[in-house]
Amino acid sequence: MKNIPVSKKIISEIFDETGFDQNNLSIRETNRLATIISKKGGIDFIRMEMGIPNIPPSEIAKEAEKEAIDRGMQGFYPPFDGIPELKSAGSEFVKAFLDVNVEPENVIPTCGSLQGGYISQALAGKMHPGKDTILYLDPTFPVTRYQAKFLGLNSTGIELYDNRGERLIEAINEKVKNGNIGAILWSSPNNPSWSCLTENELKGIAKICDENDILAIEDLAYLGMDFRKDYSQPYQKPYIPTIGKFGINWVTLISASKAFSFPGPRCGLAIISPKLNKMEFEGLEDFCGRKRFGHAFALGGLYVTTSGTSHTAQFALAKMLKASAEGKFNFIKITSEYGERAKLVRKLFLKYGFKQVYEKDMDEIVGDGFYLTMSYPNYDGNNLMLELMRYGISTITLKSTGSNRHEGLRICISFVDLKDMPLLEEKLKKFMENNT
Amino acid sequence: MKNIPVSKKIISEIFDETGFDQNNLSIRETNRLATIISKKGGIDFIRMEMGIPNIPPSEIAKEAEKEAIDRGMQGFYPPFDGIPELKSAGSEFVKAFLDVNVEPENVIPTCGSLQGGYISQALAGKMHPGKDTILYLDPTFPVTRYQAKFLGLNSTGIELYDNRGERLIEAINEKVKNGNIGAILWSSPNNPSWSCLTENELKGIAKICDENDILAIEDLAYLGMDFRKDYSQPYQKPYIPTIGKFGINWVTLISASKAFSFPGPRCGLAIISPKLNKMEFEGLEDFCGRKRFGHAFALGGLYVTTSGTSHTAQFALAKMLKASAEGKFNFIKITSEYGERAKLVRKLFLKYGFKQVYEKDMDEIVGDGFYLTMSYPNYDGNNLMLELMRYGISTITLKSTGSNRHEGLRICISFVDLKDMPLLEEKLKKFMENNT
Repeated sequence: MKNIPVSKKIISEIFDETGFDQNNLSIRETNRLATIISKKGGIDFIRMEMGIPNIPPSEIAKEAEKEAIDRGMQGFYPPFDGIPELKSAGSEFVKAFLDVNVEPENVIPTCGSLQGGYISQALAGKMHPGKDTILYLDPTFPVTRYQAKFLGLNSTGIELYDNRGERLIEAINEKVKNGNIGAILWSSPNNPSWSCLTENELKGIAKICDENDILAIEDLAYLGMDFRKDYSQPYQKPYIPTIGKFGINWVTLISASKAFSFPGPRCGLAIISPKLNKMEFEGLEDFCGRKRFGHAFALGGLYVTTSGTSHTAQFALAKMLKASAEGKFNFIKITSEYGERAKLVRKLFLKYGFKQVYEKDMDEIVGDGFYLTMSYPNYDGNNLMLELMRYGISTITLKSTGSNRHEGLRICISFVDLKDMPLLEEKLKKFMENNT
Repeated sequence: MKNIPVSKKIISEIFDETGFDQNNLSIRETNRLATIISKKGGIDFIRMEMGIPNIPPSEIAKEAEKEAIDRGMQGFYPPFDGIPELKSAGSEFVKAFLDVNVEPENVIPTCGSLQGGYISQALAGKMHPGKDTILYLDPTFPVTRYQAKFLGLNSTGIELYDNRGERLIEAINEKVKNGNIGAILWSSPNNPSWSCLTENELKGIAKICDENDILAIEDLAYLGMDFRKDYSQPYQKPYIPTIGKFGINWVTLISASKAFSFPGPRCGLAIISPKLNKMEFEGLEDFCGRKRFGHAFALGGLYVTTSGTSHTAQFALAKMLKASAEGKFNFIKITSEYGERAKLVRKLFLKYGFKQVYEKDMDEIVGDGFYLTMSYPNYDGNNLMLELMRYGISTITLKSTGSNRHEGLRICISFVDLKDMPLLEEKLKKFMENNT
């Protein structure tokens, strides 16, 4: 006889009360649901639904932002296009870890890298008449698609599970034939599959973008978190792969939320291709009064949405980037903690009968990073997600992330630390016993 | 013979070098120009072109944000719709100083009140089919018009100089007849005329908005800075006039930049009408996946543009609002310093032959606040602005702020303190001598 911690009756009552649609839960609803089930069902939860960082911010960030406050920076508007210290530190950082040459003027601080994605998509949709569709390499951070919708742009996707290497380039070539693609947007490492685009793939994408007047928007939300390689040494190979090494039409978004455990201040960077930065487009003039891409980005998009980002946070991020480039602050080593957690969590899931959905990254085994993707025989993703809730494990479906692997779940490991492993193991063990 | 500090030749050379168009200078260009003229011409400038605050931030703000940093808040994403402390402090503050009842859920922190204006206009343009035009009460903070353009919305205006009281309401009624107005947007006190809409005007606007499905967007960028009245006592008359006292379809934007000398962190508040907050609109569902206005604002617009605003800044603003509502922090008294500066600057300009353009606020004399509007006989605004540059006085034209008073200048007094008055007087005196 099955011994599942939370009864079907309780789950059913909770859905009745909340009015949530059990076939279409948002992350926030899943989050809320886990809290309610935990209370009503009287069980502790292993929370793996939210993709949020969970490593304390560095002392550098704390001290620097406090110093900025003491200097009175709360009292001064930041320049729209960023404070000189951060623009210059960003340019050094990009050289040190991505091996890309950009000037401080190509570094624009934004309210989270997410704002950089919003502005980039807005410009991409207007640069060339008729190019009003964004192509996503799926699965995708869902907000990027919401951004396109908010901006009145269309979207289409290519699934990375089925398309890597030459096939990916072929699939993109096929998609751009219509002439309606204004931008290609992807994250690498990918949320949630943790696929990392290779240099050859990036080279191919850059070529397509430059030949077809398409903007490449690269989201480095999990910068350097492919722990299979050691990216921790500044100005030394291997460098973090980036579209910035190839082509002209690109914007690279650097998030500080995960890589620098700095999500609170909403402060990321948009790195704009130096050549693109100076190029002019009539379509941009019409809607933001500036032809030149760089001006349209900072004095157009950034100005009208928020007029820059926190002055004191910019100062703190500048200090972290500078210390990293000088080899005094090993941000990669700090986040490698996530890789350690993922490794342990992965082993537990596999031990109790789960399968890793995105198991391969091209011909290699995928790395252990911030997310895992798991399925269980004879379950579809939504049922698996709901069933695991009854054991006190909260996740989201891969389907909800735009993946076509509807059998799977996205599992975020950031809130599972060493002391939680026995409880997780107990839950998974019970789940397997009940499903064998 | 005229004795003007900077020769025409130097000015002409500078325009040649910079390529600036002397008939169409942006604020930033004027700012840059003043710096160059100061260097090349060897004169000190009285800077009055930028509308930026210049009072040090409060100790409350400094200590609170440092406390938030010590608590590790840099390491946590803020909730999209704001931290509970700020939502609750905002609701108390609005009751204490505006005499309006709103729940914490109606208070949404944004990256500057400017972001609230962006999102409000975005929603206004989609709530009702065909209502794609924003009506501004001019002159206007220019960015609000750029926002509409960026969002693909049309704009139209009504000049406050010619339309106040019943005439304003009639003029608005005339404008909305077409059925294409989605929102009416104004600032009060107005930047730069310092006109303050009366309760009767606000009542009339609210009625028009509610009867015609129009969103009223009120920008309180200079909250409480009509120093003719004493708004400094919480929970006591007089209260700061606001659209929030009347009608249903309104959003009120509270900026912390000037009122709380807190421009650096980009943290303001959008106060959403409690009734509107719960209302549903099909048009919002289409572009941000949420029908309900409040959800569309926070989980739609705010989420896709920046996913909230600085966690630590929210904490600091919450402390300031709370202390204000409790009568422990007199933010009005602090900013009344601007009124004192304006009074002295106004007297100097008038003494040396200038005329105040927006001299009246309805039937009363306009208050001394953050801006003055001045003209000089036989000059049009652009020539006056350029000529004053030669004396080391930088301003912008009223024309560039959307005013139809092309003879005038906008003069921001924030950077002119007591010790600068003798220098300003010397310059104005010389100007008058040369123009009599």
